[in-house]
This record gives sequence, C-alpha cells and structure tokens, in this order.
Amino acid sequence: MKDQKVDIYDLKIKLIKKYKRFMLISEMKRAHDRIRPYIHRTPVLTSESLNKLTSANLYFKSENFQKSGSFKIRGATNAVLQLSAKSFKGDIVTVSSGNHGAALSMAVSKRNGSTIVVMPKNTSKIKVNNVIRNGGRVVWCNPSNQSRERALTKLKTMGDVEVIHPYDNKHIILGQSTIGKEFIEDIPNLDAIVVPVSGGGLLSGVLSYVKKINPSIKIFGAEPSEADDTFRSIQSGKIETNITTNTVCDGLRAQIGSITFPIIQELVDGIIVVSEDDIIKSLKLILNRLKIIVEPSCSIALAAVISNKSNFRNQNIGIVLTGGNIDLNQLPW
Amino acid sequence: MKDQKVDIYDLKIKLIKKYKRFMLISEMKRAHDRIRPYIHRTPVLTSESLNKLTSANLYFKSENFQKSGSFKIRGATNAVLQLSAKSFKGDIVTVSSGNHGAALSMAVSKRNGSTIVVMPKNTSKIKVNNVIRNGGRVVWCNPSNQSRERALTKLKTMGDVEVIHPYDNKHIILGQSTIGKEFIEDIPNLDAIVVPVSGGGLLSGVLSYVKKINPSIKIFGAEPSEADDTFRSIQSGKIETNITTNTVCDGLRAQIGSITFPIIQELVDGIIVVSEDDIIKSLKLILNRLKIIVEPSCSIALAAVISNKSNFRNQNIGIVLTGGNIDLNQLPW
Repeated sequence: MKDQKVDIYDLKIKLIKKYKRFMLISEMKRAHDRIRPYIHRTPVLTSESLNKLTSANLYFKSENFQKSGSFKIRGATNAVLQLSAKSFKGDIVTVSSGNHGAALSMAVSKRNGSTIVVMPKNTSKIKVNNVIRNGGRVVWCNPSNQSRERALTKLKTMGDVEVIHPYDNKHIILGQSTIGKEFIEDIPNLDAIVVPVSGGGLLSGVLSYVKKINPSIKIFGAEPSEADDTFRSIQSGKIETNITTNTVCDGLRAQIGSITFPIIQELVDGIIVVSEDDIIKSLKLILNRLKIIVEPSCSIALAAVISNKSNFRNQNIGIVLTGGNIDLNQLPW
Repeated sequence: MKDQKVDIYDLKIKLIKKYKRFMLISEMKRAHDRIRPYIHRTPVLTSESLNKLTSANLYFKSENFQKSGSFKIRGATNAVLQLSAKSFKGDIVTVSSGNHGAALSMAVSKRNGSTIVVMPKNTSKIKVNNVIRNGGRVVWCNPSNQSRERALTKLKTMGDVEVIHPYDNKHIILGQSTIGKEFIEDIPNLDAIVVPVSGGGLLSGVLSYVKKINPSIKIFGAEPSEADDTFRSIQSGKIETNITTNTVCDGLRAQIGSITFPIIQELVDGIIVVSEDDIIKSLKLILNRLKIIVEPSCSIALAAVISNKSNFRNQNIGIVLTGGNIDLNQLPW
C-alpha cells in the first residue's frame, strides 16, 4: 500500500516536471503567434441584466463565435501546424464527441490532409455535420471508452495514421492556453475565471498561462454532477473515472486526462459541480439575455456562478463560453 | 377619376414637404446625440460561410444586441426624451405587437413615468414579458386594427394620456434613422442595405439619412408575402392594406404608415417580397452560422438577399438584424 502511494507520487512529480517543461510562457506565446492567422480573437460580451441577476460583473469570452464554432480550433491548429509534411501522407485521426473533430478537420483541410474522426453513435447531428462540412470522415463507435479504443486500434493497424488526442496532448493544451492569454489581455482586472471542464485541455491551458502571469486570479472548473470525474479526482488525489455521463452537456462527457489532471490538481482553485437543472436554466438565460447561441457545455460556467452567488458577489468574473454547436431541433427543454 | 388622382398627388406633395422639413441631416444627427447615452452602438458582424453561400460580402448590423432586445429603443428614446414633464403626469400609451412596447416602457421608466401598451392577444409570451419586465402595463385587444383603435380611444377618454405611435411619428423615424447613420459610418463602402419593412419607421429613417449622405447606396425593403402591403402600395402608388398577416414575422404585421409611406415611395430602390419558407430557412442559417439569436422578422432581410443572389453578387450588402426577441419554446419549425 505504501509502495503504491509512492508510485503515484513519483508519477505525479514526473508529470508535473513534464508539464513545467512545456508549459512555459514563451511556448504559449509562440503557440498564439502560430495560430493567430487561423483563429478569431473572439469578443468579450457583457450584460447589465445578468450582472444584476448575479450581483457581479460578468465577462463572457465568446468562443461560440470562434472558427468551427468552438475554442477547439485553437489546440487543433497548433497541433496540425507542427506536423511534418510526411504526416499528411496518411490520415490524421482523432476521437471526438464533436467539436474537436470538426476543428481538427478544418485545420487538416487547410493543409490539404485527410481526417478521420471516431465518433460515438449518440453524437448530435449538428456536430456530425460540422465534421463532414469541414472535410472530415466519420468512423462510428459505441459511446464507451472500450469501443472507442477498439476503433482507434483498428485504424492504426490499417495503415499510417497520426493520432491527435483531443486533450491529452501538449500542443492541444498550448493552443487552448491562448484563451487565457487573450482573456487577461482584454480584461486585466478579472478576479476569477470559470471554465467548463471535461478532458481538461482547456482548463489546464488557461491555468498554465493565467496562474503564471497573475496567480491572484482564482480559476475554477465547472463540471456536471452527472460526469464529475475531475471533482472526485481532485478529492481523492488520483484520476477517477466517470460513473455516469448522463448530462445534456455533450461536450463534457470525456474522462480527465493523465497530462491535464496533474496541472489542474496543482493549480486549480476548485471544481464547482452543477446540476442538470441549473445548466438548462443558465442556457436559457444566455440565449434570452445575451442573444447568442451557445451549447449547454458552456452555459454550465454561468450556472456555477449563479449557484455560488455569495462567493462571487461584486467580483469581476470571466466566463469562457466554449462553443455554439447546439442542435436547435433538440433544445433540452 | 382625374380629380382623385390630383388629390392623391397633392397629398403626396404635402407629405413629402412635411418629411423634408423634419428629415434634415442636422435633425437626425441631433437625435443621435440625444439618444446616444441610452443605446448601444451595436456591432456589425460578418460570416465567411454566409459570404460564400451568397457570393457577396454581408455586413449584419446586429440590433438584436440592442437595449430592450431590438432597434425600437432608438425611436422610443428619441420620442420620450422630448416629452415635457407634464406628459408624465398621465400615462404614456402605445399600440405594439411587442418590441416597440418594451422599448417605450424602458424609455418611459427611465423618466419615472408609466406606460400602457395596447397589445393584440396573439402576441408572443416573450414580448409580453419584455413589456412587463421594463415596467409597462398591458391592455389587450383583438388582433385587428378596429379592436386596437377601440382600445386606444377608450384609454384616451379615461384621462390624460400621451400617445406615441410606433412608427407614424417624426421623432420615432428620426430615432430609427440613427441605424443608417451608424451603419455607413462603420462600413462606408456598402453597395446596398436591406431592411425589413412593416409600418415603415425603420425603412423611412434609414432611407432619409443614407440617401442624403450617399444616394448611390441602394436601399431595399424586405417584406413577407403574407403581409405585403408596402409592396402593393408602391405598385399602386397609394396606401394599400394587408390582406393577410399570416406570417411568422410577428414584428412585420403592421400597416404601412401615412408619414412613412411617402418617404419610402420617394426614396426606396425596391421592396423584395419573401416567402415564409425562405424566412424560416434564413432564420436557421443566422442561428447556426452567426451563432446569434434573432427574430424571423429580421432573418427576412437575409432571405431577400439569398432569393435574389444574382442581383447582389460580389457586392457589399448591409443587413439590419432588427431584434432578438424570439420565443425559444416556439421556434417556427
């Protein structure tokens, strides 16, 4: 038992050393320079009525307006731009419940390559269409880790493929860190930032940049109670798996990663767990008050603030709206 | 017969003289200065994918982000700021299918007055709630001109009231003209502007400003085929009434006005009539591609461009997105 603990500790140290190596400010700045021509600098929106409702000053970093409809284009572009010409002889492959798949397809198409996205059969139609519209091909799997891994292994045995993991990949995390960079450049007086967490690519990226530049800014993850592996992992000190993924947040059903977790564990100020009801209520608020289209997977960050009003009162809160790929024929109410 | 024609002509000349008197550039600039502290300068959005679809460069003036959720706050504020203190002893009254009522309520509340909005019983719930949320009271009528007039007359007999018509009012038109002003200030190289038309306040305002500053910019009204009184009025040369108002565009069911019509008749380059199907298709496009919430009453302007692609090819087209007050529980598909 004691030996096992030591092992986990060693592993953690090793991983933190690893992330410290690649999560340098200079690296994140270089990633930003690299992807800048291919992404939008998304606007930061405010709403008097939502400020009144929360008794705080909310700043919404609106990645729903991002190319491909979500922030995922940042990491995907950063990863794809660093592939050698040789990689594009075979297929670029990923597993994705939607947004990363579409983003990767877009980034790979710009280099005239070919993308295969392994998608669970229960993926929403709009996200499947986004992959196809951006030039990707879909290979179906069942909505389980095992089925996904089987599909991936099969693709690897079929020929030369380059796998780009949606979040457990340093280039992906470096790309997502640019959201934190833009956010604090545009709104320098933030007291806190709330970020949805699933695989952890976005949260670990934002933490890596912002905490190094200004450690006094508190950073929280927001996670559905129906897929709360990160919350439980932080509590137990080791990676836990999701017990259910029965959430309307179709972008937040992934498992926290082995590279992302140690970064989050080290730097995050807390994970706020949110109920399905609160996620749907906050989705309605954003649609009706901000007049923009977002997915439930990001309205969760507003829900986290509303359900913890007293902790955020009178503060300047940054909320990352991660994407806008929602199926308007299947609104969750 | 001849006599009648002369009468109409005389009337037209008289009305044009009247509008020429109050539609001075200096007046419109003063209106803008007056309302500026109370409105947003709304952003102009673009979308590569919609540009590709239409083979044109589209610029969306996004009044869905405007205070009260629509452009109507411009005219309402301009009118309310010019009322004397005495006017606020009684109620400020209007008739509205929604957006003007909410805007007027907001503007009147800011002067600590009281608003009564006569609304047709078939008004969408979100628009009724917006009136109430902004401090207005609702008096119901049936969805017909006669019923509305009866309700209005009754209110007038009950005491001191000040009626602010939603569009046939010079201060309202002057307020709406500021959209044209902002639009050509922000995007000076527009070839054309497409504006939804109902009562004509917005269209006559935009025409009055833009055609005086740059008459080479073509300006079109977009009108539902199910409420096409303006199109038929332009054809016949006199005000025609709507035969049906059976359109999803709940903001475009009003009758063209006696002040707005002669301005439109004199200056507009054409009225484009759009089918219900095309309105709904363009609504989906805006929601899915621009990732913003708009009402069908303004997606009609995009539909007008798409259904006349060849005429707009390669041009810089301004589209006024008039409002975002749509009931997400009753999407029209």
